[in-house]
Amino acid sequence: MSTLLESYTAGRWFRAADEGEPLLDATTGEEVARISSRGLDLSAMLAHARDTGGPALRALTFHQRAAALKAVAKHLLAGKDEFYALSVRTGATTRDTAVDVDGGIGTLFSFASKGVRELPNDTIVMDGAVEQLGKAGTFVGRHVYTSRPGVAVQINAFNFPVWGMLEKLAPAFLAGLPSIVKPASQTAYLTELVVRRIIESGLLPEGTLQLISGSAGSLLDELDLQDSVAFTGSAHTAGILRRHVSVLDGGVRLGVEADSLNCSILGPDVHVDDPEFDLFIKGVVTEMTVKAGQKCTAIRRVIVPSQIAGRVEDALAARLSQINIGDPRDPAVRMGPLASIGQRDEVYKAVESLRAGAEIVSGSLAENGAFFHPLVLRATPGAVEPHNVEPFGPVSTVISYDGLDEAVALAARGRGSLVASVATHDADVARTVVLGLAPWHGRVLVLDRDDAKESTGHGSPLPMLVHGGPGRAGGGEELGGIRAVLHHLQRTAVQASPDLLTAVTGQWTTGAAQRVEDVHPFRKSLAELRIGDTIRSAPRTVSLADIDHFAEFTGDTFYAHTDPEAAARNPLFGGIVAHGYLVVSLAAGLFVDPAPGPVLANYGVDGLRFLTPVKAGDTIAVTLTVKQIKPRNSADYGEVHWDAVVTNQNQEKVATYDVLTLVAKTQPS
Amino acid sequence: MSTLLESYTAGRWFRAADEGEPLLDATTGEEVARISSRGLDLSAMLAHARDTGGPALRALTFHQRAAALKAVAKHLLAGKDEFYALSVRTGATTRDTAVDVDGGIGTLFSFASKGVRELPNDTIVMDGAVEQLGKAGTFVGRHVYTSRPGVAVQINAFNFPVWGMLEKLAPAFLAGLPSIVKPASQTAYLTELVVRRIIESGLLPEGTLQLISGSAGSLLDELDLQDSVAFTGSAHTAGILRRHVSVLDGGVRLGVEADSLNCSILGPDVHVDDPEFDLFIKGVVTEMTVKAGQKCTAIRRVIVPSQIAGRVEDALAARLSQINIGDPRDPAVRMGPLASIGQRDEVYKAVESLRAGAEIVSGSLAENGAFFHPLVLRATPGAVEPHNVEPFGPVSTVISYDGLDEAVALAARGRGSLVASVATHDADVARTVVLGLAPWHGRVLVLDRDDAKESTGHGSPLPMLVHGGPGRAGGGEELGGIRAVLHHLQRTAVQASPDLLTAVTGQWTTGAAQRVEDVHPFRKSLAELRIGDTIRSAPRTVSLADIDHFAEFTGDTFYAHTDPEAAARNPLFGGIVAHGYLVVSLAAGLFVDPAPGPVLANYGVDGLRFLTPVKAGDTIAVTLTVKQIKPRNSADYGEVHWDAVVTNQNQEKVATYDVLTLVAKTQPS
Repeated sequence: MSTLLESYTAGRWFRAADEGEPLLDATTGEEVARISSRGLDLSAMLAHARDTGGPALRALTFHQRAAALKAVAKHLLAGKDEFYALSVRTGATTRDTAVDVDGGIGTLFSFASKGVRELPNDTIVMDGAVEQLGKAGTFVGRHVYTSRPGVAVQINAFNFPVWGMLEKLAPAFLAGLPSIVKPASQTAYLTELVVRRIIESGLLPEGTLQLISGSAGSLLDELDLQDSVAFTGSAHTAGILRRHVSVLDGGVRLGVEADSLNCSILGPDVHVDDPEFDLFIKGVVTEMTVKAGQKCTAIRRVIVPSQIAGRVEDALAARLSQINIGDPRDPAVRMGPLASIGQRDEVYKAVESLRAGAEIVSGSLAENGAFFHPLVLRATPGAVEPHNVEPFGPVSTVISYDGLDEAVALAARGRGSLVASVATHDADVARTVVLGLAPWHGRVLVLDRDDAKESTGHGSPLPMLVHGGPGRAGGGEELGGIRAVLHHLQRTAVQASPDLLTAVTGQWTTGAAQRVEDVHPFRKSLAELRIGDTIRSAPRTVSLADIDHFAEFTGDTFYAHTDPEAAARNPLFGGIVAHGYLVVSLAAGLFVDPAPGPVLANYGVDGLRFLTPVKAGDTIAVTLTVKQIKPRNSADYGEVHWDAVVTNQNQEKVATYDVLTLVAKTQPS
Repeated sequence: MSTLLESYTAGRWFRAADEGEPLLDATTGEEVARISSRGLDLSAMLAHARDTGGPALRALTFHQRAAALKAVAKHLLAGKDEFYALSVRTGATTRDTAVDVDGGIGTLFSFASKGVRELPNDTIVMDGAVEQLGKAGTFVGRHVYTSRPGVAVQINAFNFPVWGMLEKLAPAFLAGLPSIVKPASQTAYLTELVVRRIIESGLLPEGTLQLISGSAGSLLDELDLQDSVAFTGSAHTAGILRRHVSVLDGGVRLGVEADSLNCSILGPDVHVDDPEFDLFIKGVVTEMTVKAGQKCTAIRRVIVPSQIAGRVEDALAARLSQINIGDPRDPAVRMGPLASIGQRDEVYKAVESLRAGAEIVSGSLAENGAFFHPLVLRATPGAVEPHNVEPFGPVSTVISYDGLDEAVALAARGRGSLVASVATHDADVARTVVLGLAPWHGRVLVLDRDDAKESTGHGSPLPMLVHGGPGRAGGGEELGGIRAVLHHLQRTAVQASPDLLTAVTGQWTTGAAQRVEDVHPFRKSLAELRIGDTIRSAPRTVSLADIDHFAEFTGDTFYAHTDPEAAARNPLFGGIVAHGYLVVSLAAGLFVDPAPGPVLANYGVDGLRFLTPVKAGDTIAVTLTVKQIKPRNSADYGEVHWDAVVTNQNQEKVATYDVLTLVAKTQPS
């Protein structure tokens, strides 16, 4: 008998007392492993996540969490040969495994990178600007995202045992939620191996990753309003989850990513000898054959101009006939078997339903274990089946259209999909089709000669782009970079005085206390600087000579700075005004402290707005206040954002902006 | 017999054939109106929204939609006396009606204003930055929000017949969704009057606002995946809606805003003689008495330090005893009746349940029509009822805590609320409590002596802040400015070549075609400018003399520009570098076209980053490309955003930023 897969719970590996169910090699039918969760204490698992994993994780900043993900990614990458070796038993070719294993590891790297670049080195995230809620500015509001004190349950599909786990784990981990992973049984041995390597590495805090090998039993019954369930799989199972009382009445958040009848559209501008025609055919064939068509993003509907439909069918048949089908252990093989005999039977059944509205134009239904030959069908005009029946294998249906409106309407008949693609090199076609498809899709790919070389293709969800779609696709959103992290956080509007909002958010808010001390803040290290530290500059009068000189020196002789009569006619200025760049240059001269010290560089400026023109003879001054202090974990300096306000002699705001500097963590030695 | 309320459907007012159900004056019990929707053709109403209202609305840009909302707001404001007169029959005092009527109109104004300031004058919205998906930059991605071709059904509660309608209508209208409004029967006469005035005004496109007076019958059965339902009301009804097959399997989006057991916490730092003590007491009393406590945001739980609980109870009793209860027609009256005898009975029942875990400490249960006297209870230590039972009237329970952790834990026992408040003047208390409460709440108010004067109070949702909360509060989000609009739109990731992404989004994307023509783009009017119009400047060498001179002229003598030895030791520069402000000033000199023309002003700069230091002897040049063209509807100019890239002699990027200009729509005469 083969190995019984274990669950990882409450800090140890758990082995069920029974023999479990066998899991079979997709190609050979040999037993790979057995699976059972009988006797697994799900309450203890949840308690461990809540009491140990969650608090440990939420004690880390986003940057620290990102660093842990990066370390895990590196660790898995170094050991990936083992995953490739086991993956072949799922029926995956090397190409298929790359999508799963390298795709999953790449997703970890991507979230690790975005976590550092786009999230603060803190445990809360600001959303949007400060809202002034009263005229005097004593009552302000801001939205913050905080971590939920809950658990993220992740129920994955069989087709991507590695990527499926990692793409859900990464954003939940960044968000501060401990994960409980429940892979589909069929390929759970690969997920179990990867989880085992992660746990062994000790790189994630204990309790932040637990695994259920086998049934999740009554886990959902015990979930609560701070918990969430992310599900990938069939619409049928999604419907069962939606009906669970924990979701209906218990406040448990449920995200669904379900299979959908994704389409690819050939633009009416494309001729058979255009590069886009070949790209389109290649794209469809790739989606039909990668993972033997067992992808929730695969192309099920091939929507093409009616006058070219026959050419499309021929080209698909020709290209598919060259696909080498067989044992994925053979490097020459391009497409392996379906995941199991059971999956093959499901596809047979779906094809039978489909044939009520479509006829087979190429391929055959010959039986051979879990293998299934690619099949192209042609839709009967007006048939409903091609838009409703999803064969989860290497099967696509060609559907004809006349005119772009019909193409978009046909796509919409899928009732919501994860992804659509369109092959076109025409800007108007691209705009019309993409904006027509967008309300029905989570992702739309435009394929043309210009992006083909770098395109990752119709079927590849990318970590930085949302994955999910409305309607049949489940209505959820995964990935999309930091968007996926935010989905796990709670957004809350905070209303307070500027001082207390500053205290809550850790960011200086206009109207809050400003602290002017004897020591110039440029003399303070990152460790010494405090939110609210302020420089109030001396005044400087801007003369007409200054403006003239600046125009001459820089070459910026725009008439508003140089020609009194023309400037007088300008509706916004009504006379000579100083250059905006002159104002901010002089402001820097007013606030800078020149001697070497902790401030290393001004690396940028954000949100610069010129609010009141500066005329010759006006006197400006600048107030610079420490707004944000962002230490980096991986450098001996960090970023400091300074709120800059330039005013004139009437206390009118002339310019407002954020000055971005790099500041050393300690005083230079 | 009183008037039978009508529904507005398919372009006309519909009157049911039957007599309808009577709606009674809350104070006098007299019949105000009757209500019935019997015979109303809901399919025709939906078809009208889909075929007439939706297309008309989506043909308008966000700015045009905002202008329509603003016009409606002005129209309603001018005629608001009529609404006040009718509102009194709901039991509302003048103060109560201000919250409903002026609050509702203010929400329209707020969304109109945000629509112009924060949304493009277009029909799609960009989300986040362009994502480079390949190394060579030929394959890029971006998220766009588009309007769903659906219908927004809005089911409102009885307590705010005007605000409740307008706060849902405004964001849906901005998002391009036609609305079908279904008010609660009890106060539907006021909603019907306001809808009548809006329809009469002709300010909204026909089919974008329809009204169901009476039962919504089988409306939900006919909804589809592009449709949404926004519901405000009881958790019980929310549960029924969640169980509807259109929601479970049909892809209909359901947003719920349910009553919750909101709390207010008195900080442990507050002494009875501190201003925050009085503010806290006033806040609780206000929330108990406005709308006679019939607000989903009212304070049900008063969480106070145990040692001060008796003082709180005394202070509440004293202040409540001064509340003048009676006929809202009397201007001296501070609190009117509940909305009906039925509502009064509901509150009685809830108080009976509550008494299992709390005792009455002030107020009485005396009967008098729909009137209900304010009641303060004291929770039995550890009791569950105060956290679970919601009397929808002027009833609050005082709960004692010891230590901040217990205060936060008690608040969380409400299992998710719309809002919590904390009275404190201590920064640490504010941060601890707000971040502890945040995962359980949609909004948290900090009340202190600094914001009290301008504070809108615990119970007021504001258009610019999210309204909604997790768990018991329904899990939805309304309001929050443009966030509420985005909730109605579909987010889609678009992948394409830079040229086709530019075509789809209407914004120039790095890598897309740049068009250099003989005429300088500064000579083109807004109407003549095209996305991709480009200026490639001549080069300019930056000399050490330039740097020296700029330092002297501006006063910015930072050592990296002036002291060769110190600059050499700077880890980022390793020698003298030009000021960032010098670089952008020279760049402006290189790209500007000085003579008077359509370009009126440079009003700002966004996202300026200095990427490579410029050293003495380096030669810079700048490329400026039209990235976005944003005409204003209300001015004879618009905004043009230019993508600016400054490079050096090695084609390294020295600085990147967006230059923001105002450009006249036509050539100056």
